[in-house]
Amino acid sequence: MFVQNELARSLSCLRCGAEYEWGDYTAGCPSCLAQGFPASLKIDYAADAAWSVDPKVRGMRRFADRLPYRTYPTLGEGDTPLVDLPDFAAEVEVGSLWLKNEGQNPTGSHKDRMSALVVARAKEIGCTTVVAASSGNAGASLAAYAAAAGLNCVVITTVQMNPIWGQAVRSTGAELVAAHDSLKRWSYMRKMVEEQGWYPATNYLDPPTGSNPFGVQGYKTCGHELAESFAGAGLSAVVVPTSRGDLLWGIWQGLKEAQAAGWIQTVPRMYAVEPFGRLSRVLSGEDYRDHFSGDHANTESIGGTTVTYQSVHTLKESGGRAIDVNGGEALRGQAELARRGLYVESSSAVVWEAVKKLKASGEIGEADRVVMIGTSNGYKDNYFAQQPEMRVIDAE
Amino acid sequence: MFVQNELARSLSCLRCGAEYEWGDYTAGCPSCLAQGFPASLKIDYAADAAWSVDPKVRGMRRFADRLPYRTYPTLGEGDTPLVDLPDFAAEVEVGSLWLKNEGQNPTGSHKDRMSALVVARAKEIGCTTVVAASSGNAGASLAAYAAAAGLNCVVITTVQMNPIWGQAVRSTGAELVAAHDSLKRWSYMRKMVEEQGWYPATNYLDPPTGSNPFGVQGYKTCGHELAESFAGAGLSAVVVPTSRGDLLWGIWQGLKEAQAAGWIQTVPRMYAVEPFGRLSRVLSGEDYRDHFSGDHANTESIGGTTVTYQSVHTLKESGGRAIDVNGGEALRGQAELARRGLYVESSSAVVWEAVKKLKASGEIGEADRVVMIGTSNGYKDNYFAQQPEMRVIDAE
Repeated sequence: MFVQNELARSLSCLRCGAEYEWGDYTAGCPSCLAQGFPASLKIDYAADAAWSVDPKVRGMRRFADRLPYRTYPTLGEGDTPLVDLPDFAAEVEVGSLWLKNEGQNPTGSHKDRMSALVVARAKEIGCTTVVAASSGNAGASLAAYAAAAGLNCVVITTVQMNPIWGQAVRSTGAELVAAHDSLKRWSYMRKMVEEQGWYPATNYLDPPTGSNPFGVQGYKTCGHELAESFAGAGLSAVVVPTSRGDLLWGIWQGLKEAQAAGWIQTVPRMYAVEPFGRLSRVLSGEDYRDHFSGDHANTESIGGTTVTYQSVHTLKESGGRAIDVNGGEALRGQAELARRGLYVESSSAVVWEAVKKLKASGEIGEADRVVMIGTSNGYKDNYFAQQPEMRVIDAE
Repeated sequence: MFVQNELARSLSCLRCGAEYEWGDYTAGCPSCLAQGFPASLKIDYAADAAWSVDPKVRGMRRFADRLPYRTYPTLGEGDTPLVDLPDFAAEVEVGSLWLKNEGQNPTGSHKDRMSALVVARAKEIGCTTVVAASSGNAGASLAAYAAAAGLNCVVITTVQMNPIWGQAVRSTGAELVAAHDSLKRWSYMRKMVEEQGWYPATNYLDPPTGSNPFGVQGYKTCGHELAESFAGAGLSAVVVPTSRGDLLWGIWQGLKEAQAAGWIQTVPRMYAVEPFGRLSRVLSGEDYRDHFSGDHANTESIGGTTVTYQSVHTLKESGGRAIDVNGGEALRGQAELARRGLYVESSSAVVWEAVKKLKASGEIGEADRVVMIGTSNGYKDNYFAQQPEMRVIDAE
């Protein structure tokens, strides 16, 4: 069984600041929601307690003092590599450039940092079925961690689901349920959460809030790892592929915790990469609760028509912004990264195209130190899954 | 540029003990080969030098004192997780059971530990093209590291190559050359190595020796990591999917180095898992240079008709043996691991079936502590790549 970290005290709303006793508020802040403004909850920890880290502990668990659960069903998540790309930095003339490769997590994406904590919470409160609305990495990850935890899992997808992920989900024994379109996943999921008591890993509202508050805490560790890597060295910007911004906000929270603990002196600007203008329109004044239409071809993992409060908050507070990278640009970025030995999903490769745009606009410069987050590996990507070109020889 | 580790002194033959000056002997020991006995070379290090390890250094580079190159083109290889499986241990009634998941390396397999050092060596000696005979993980890995190093790469495969790997190779810009059968890859490769000066990562002889001696040194770090994890705790057995035994022998060398350094008191028995009797027939008296026929359906990554001296040596010296696991058993093992959240390639899943057999035979028991090496992740595996079963709903 998994027991709450004694340093984790309560939850509070990112938007209104309301505090809540320890518990499940999987639709986000009840008060904001009642007013029609979906907003995420963070978890608050005993501020006076020492935050200790044992460098010998591998993975996410090294940061257990700042997670809701110190132990959880683990498959070996976290401690992903930070790959230095001096050649790419020179090409675009920025100071330094790295790719943090979250594709080296157990199921091949950052989602594993979330899933481990979601299933720990479900186990503690006795829920037997976990559920995610996902057509990709989140579903494959939750299914694996549910299997590791001995929980049932349902992944609500669409009929267009990429079979590479579909098989990864089904192989665990999880059930795949398919709706005819992406938004309908949420209404079905809400019904099952409310009526059947399924424990939700992801959002199920429209307009949406962030994913499960316990799960999002796991993304902080990606920020903690960056803070360890850049202790004393400074980091100017972090560029994150974004749909509803769980990872974006999670990394930001982790970096701020690390700053408060004195690991780093300054925090970087956070940049969200999206396939078309959603967050950028909100930052220009539109309502974050609107639907935004556009093309997410070749960038399914960051697709969708909605944004979240947590994303807007992170971009504003950190002084960053959202950058649009379309499908054609994503495929070009993917090809260029692959020719550098980095095989990432197209939805991850948008970060490299975004760096080019940020340099062209002057928002990052020759003295800046920039990290791109690669969220998932190229084996997920059926754009690659065709017969390759080969030269047939008649070897003697 | 990459410069030889000053502690690395010379090479010596595993079979005859002959010593060789620093250089490239990619066909293994010249003396043994001249007598018709292909045999691998190891690298010898200054025995009196301190072997220091900085626990803060992530990945393979932590063990740089025992690698031929202290730096190399890195994509973030090594430090793979060790996943504790108490439920599986209880099921088969062994003391403890872990899976070390090499599928979390940059290109999704253990081969990355080798490729990094092969390309470092090629760069130092000024070779511009590296080559591997591979229809899977070795090719995908070498292609990525060649891309990272700015080298040309040719992967010699067969026309039956799984397109998942083919695309991973091609995406890097490497050339794919296809022979009509597996053994013909070697004759073509030998010709290009000898006539064109291509730098070989893998074997090209028939009967074969091990892969490039500089590369195999990288596999020692998998053994070093195990020794760190089991310092003071004891490890009874390591179970390794095996074709020509580079990883098997590399882990064994790493464990013995760790024992010599006092990290661990004892070394485990090494068990090789193969799809049909090859090594097991050699251990029963057949000549290791023979060809062995059998079915490698569903276990292509450990297929082939040959064995190597290094494999036989490792099994004999460690007191282990070879275990046959056929394709049907491999798929069962893969399904059982997936239902535990561990998504591994079928050729890796053989380790779980092998553990069942070793327990049934009494070779591992209730007090034993056993590690299975998962060499590659399930996304490589086109046995999974079909449309999954899903329930279509008509959500409101």
